[in-house]
Amino acid sequence: MKARVTITLKNGVLDPQGKAIEGALGALGFSGVGEVRQGKIIDLELAESDRDAAMKTIDEMCRKLLANTVIENYSIDIV
Amino acid sequence: MKARVTITLKNGVLDPQGKAIEGALGALGFSGVGEVRQGKIIDLELAESDRDAAMKTIDEMCRKLLANTVIENYSIDIV
Repeated sequence: MKARVTITLKNGVLDPQGKAIEGALGALGFSGVGEVRQGKIIDLELAESDRDAAMKTIDEMCRKLLANTVIENYSIDIV
Repeated sequence: MKARVTITLKNGVLDPQGKAIEGALGALGFSGVGEVRQGKIIDLELAESDRDAAMKTIDEMCRKLLANTVIENYSIDIV
């Protein structure tokens, strides 16, 4: 079973990487670009074939390792 | 208009970050984890209100700045 975890910064958390992209796009001549925020995705392959069990395992992975829940939100999609 | 750009490594490109996550998950006791690949997302706010024009602009942004098309694939979703 394949899953994708999407990790984004919570609202209000400063995102210097996003700001840098915003600045670079402006410098390249792209106008009308508002806020830019960067996040990450993690694609996982799991041996588990039960959807609910997989969701539970991945949720635990996110809390223990993948996401910093103080400043990040995460969402899990089973593909 | 809001858009999300998803950037992933092409197949066959070595992903040390993914490998590190894979190793760390194993060390934490998660078994049955196959390949792990990491990618990134970039959330953009655009002043443009026409969907097709926005797609075209973002595609250009990806080719010029956001993605390294030699080793990365990108996809664009208008939200």
